[in-house]
Amino acid sequence: MNEADGRFMALALGLGRQGLGRTWPNPSVGCVLVRDGRILARARTADGGRPHAEMRALAAADPRGATAYVTLEPCAHVGETPACASELARAGVARVVIGCADADARTAGQGVAILRAAGVAVTTGVREAEARALHAGFLSRVERGRPALTLKLAASLDGRIATATGESQWITGTEARRHVHALRARHDAVMVGAGTARADDPALTVRGLGIARQPVRVVVSRRLDLPRDGRLAATARDVPLWLCHGPDAAAASRAAWEAAGARLLPCAVDHGQLAPESVLAALGAAGLTSVFCEGGGGLAASLLAADLVDELVAYSAGLVLGAEGLPMVGAMGVDALAAAPRFHLAETTPIGGDLLHRWRRD
Amino acid sequence: MNEADGRFMALALGLGRQGLGRTWPNPSVGCVLVRDGRILARARTADGGRPHAEMRALAAADPRGATAYVTLEPCAHVGETPACASELARAGVARVVIGCADADARTAGQGVAILRAAGVAVTTGVREAEARALHAGFLSRVERGRPALTLKLAASLDGRIATATGESQWITGTEARRHVHALRARHDAVMVGAGTARADDPALTVRGLGIARQPVRVVVSRRLDLPRDGRLAATARDVPLWLCHGPDAAAASRAAWEAAGARLLPCAVDHGQLAPESVLAALGAAGLTSVFCEGGGGLAASLLAADLVDELVAYSAGLVLGAEGLPMVGAMGVDALAAAPRFHLAETTPIGGDLLHRWRRD
Ligand SMILES: NC(=O)c1ccc[n+]([C@@H]2O[C@H](COP(=O)([O-])OP(=O)(O)OC[C@H]3O[C@@H](n4cnc5c(N)ncnc54)[C@H](OP(=O)(O)O)[C@@H]3O)[C@@H](O)[C@H]2O)c1
Ligand SMILES: NC(=O)c1ccc[n+]([C@@H]2O[C@H](COP(=O)([O-])OP(=O)(O)OC[C@H]3O[C@@H](n4cnc5c(N)ncnc54)[C@H](OP(=O)(O)O)[C@@H]3O)[C@@H](O)[C@H]2O)c1
Repeated sequence: MNEADGRFMALALGLGRQGLGRTWPNPSVGCVLVRDGRILARARTADGGRPHAEMRALAAADPRGATAYVTLEPCAHVGETPACASELARAGVARVVIGCADADARTAGQGVAILRAAGVAVTTGVREAEARALHAGFLSRVERGRPALTLKLAASLDGRIATATGESQWITGTEARRHVHALRARHDAVMVGAGTARADDPALTVRGLGIARQPVRVVVSRRLDLPRDGRLAATARDVPLWLCHGPDAAAASRAAWEAAGARLLPCAVDHGQLAPESVLAALGAAGLTSVFCEGGGGLAASLLAADLVDELVAYSAGLVLGAEGLPMVGAMGVDALAAAPRFHLAETTPIGGDLLHRWRRD
Repeated sequence: MNEADGRFMALALGLGRQGLGRTWPNPSVGCVLVRDGRILARARTADGGRPHAEMRALAAADPRGATAYVTLEPCAHVGETPACASELARAGVARVVIGCADADARTAGQGVAILRAAGVAVTTGVREAEARALHAGFLSRVERGRPALTLKLAASLDGRIATATGESQWITGTEARRHVHALRARHDAVMVGAGTARADDPALTVRGLGIARQPVRVVVSRRLDLPRDGRLAATARDVPLWLCHGPDAAAASRAAWEAAGARLLPCAVDHGQLAPESVLAALGAAGLTSVFCEGGGGLAASLLAADLVDELVAYSAGLVLGAEGLPMVGAMGVDALAAAPRFHLAETTPIGGDLLHRWRRD
């Protein structure tokens, strides 16, 4: 890889990362226009997914003869707006450098083909692994029909989230909790099980970071057996609240939640609970590319047992609570060690008095 | 701190560390003799605790006019051998630089006083924190009457050491297990509860590292209810095996274990189990300065609940086993979060596919 190409692509990747959690159902693309080594424009996909990064960059400078660095293959399909690949060529861009290919059947390879046919030089696969990591959620939705899933695990060193008497504040410190809010903001949605909604009456919003667009809040409850006088219900008109439920949720409950402003997503039931695959498929169909699950232990266990977790974000606090404490992950039905999904270590960082460690599915 | 003093003390500390686990009941001291910036001799306390580092260094070179760097205040008491402080002065050493003060009442401050009285220049407190860390076990034994205690916790990310069906090999990888053997070798003793001795028939020796001196093996069992046809019994004449027991251990069991080569340490009973404070006091009285406890969950819980753990060494494997799995720490009787001892993060290192994290008591 050419040194300058790598440097400008790194810049485009950084722009793309700034839009994570804010552009669904579209990918958060970064774009940098460069001529003679000078940067003419930098842009990312706008909040809500439009305009695309390329169109915003083209609008910001005269791009004739320039090189465009884009983190994802420019789109080839004409929708509400013209295709970015054609527009780049039409605007006189001389060369396009691409991070990773699109997986969307309407674009895959077509974006490159349109550019080359128009006489634009194309280089592909620059910082490809980083580009694929940036667009992991989007690629997951296109390739697997479901969002990428990150599971948070915050606990004592022996994996407990509360003492025998139920005391759970504060196991991890304020810095770790702030970090959780930053991670919420970088995902399209935050998800919890009904048990957590019933026990904690959480708001599930991003606080203290001054963000413009809140992630969607998702609660998983087969019969919509959720408190209608809690914080989630009270805020459903301000911050999106989506409820995944089974076919046997009472019509009256559905109507009441819809009246309160929630969106209902019907899912299949398996073994007496919502089928985790069905929940994620419904969230993908509704446009989400990334979901941050914060537990509780019951939902975490189902998602892990179904091998649907792409990344684990663990916060370990420097104390031990003992076996009477509440476990961070519930019963999983894993008998043989070989059946447990394995993750590899991606990052460790001390954070306040706690240890953050991130693991990715092998 | 003078730059050269810091550098030579670092060397002395490194020498001292090489003797950890091999010099009890004495501290593993490092000593470097320097004249005109040139190193004349380097030494550490010999295996078994004698001769002391200072005497070995003095024997290795003509020390007249030299500076001696010693990690711990030279001893002042005349025992089987003359006091190191007097010997350094008598040999013509011009200056002595000391890491940390001795806490032993027979030496504390006396070593320095003897040197100064003899006209030797003395500098104290050079790299003092590192010196205190090196001698933590020795200082613990002198100041608290018990060895420093390190507790190993090796488990899945949710704190499980076996699946519901009891499968536990291999949760952590070969590199982590090799690391455990290296840690065993750096402690005076390895300790487990009787449950582990009964379930696993462990050897508790250091293997694969070619060491000359094996750490003592300690098993904690109130009534000496331990298999006499296992590996511990079979090797009790080759590698020290110490059994901590209560007053109600049957005379026949005691006699049989002593005949097999084990050393018996009587301890007090509290709440139906051996009192952990009494166990550590007995080990301290027998000369141990550092103990590495490898579980199981029952003994780990008792030691943590009694706030006797100085350092936690955790190995986290990148998988989750679920709540049916065997917990790494048993019931502790901790109700209030504030009652749980807190530890601060001292180190994190990826090791094979696992994560090593070390925590020290605040
Ligand atoms: N420290 C932390 O980081 C943290 C984070 C979150 C929660 N917590 C604690 O965890 C506790 C709640 O945990 P929990 O295990 O009881 O509840 P949970 O995992 O939040 O929710 C479990 C519930 O979700 C619904 N559900 C639907 N489909 C499911 C599926 N496939 N798998 C699992 N659940 C499904 C079920 O309720 P329906 O019958 O309504 O379908 C089920 O009872 C609370 O005490 C909370 O404070 C702690
Ligand atoms: N993955 C790992 O790293 C690892 C490490 C070690 C063990 N393990 C597993 O852990 C299991 C054994 O754990 P465990 O909890 O049953 O046994 P344990 O902690 O090894 O031993 C508990 C036993 O020690 C004796 N004891 C005496 N005083 C005690 C005190 N103050 N506190 C606690 N115990 C005291 C008691 O037996 P007496 O009645 O004889 O006094 C008690 O039953 C085994 O399955 C083993 O494989 C795993």
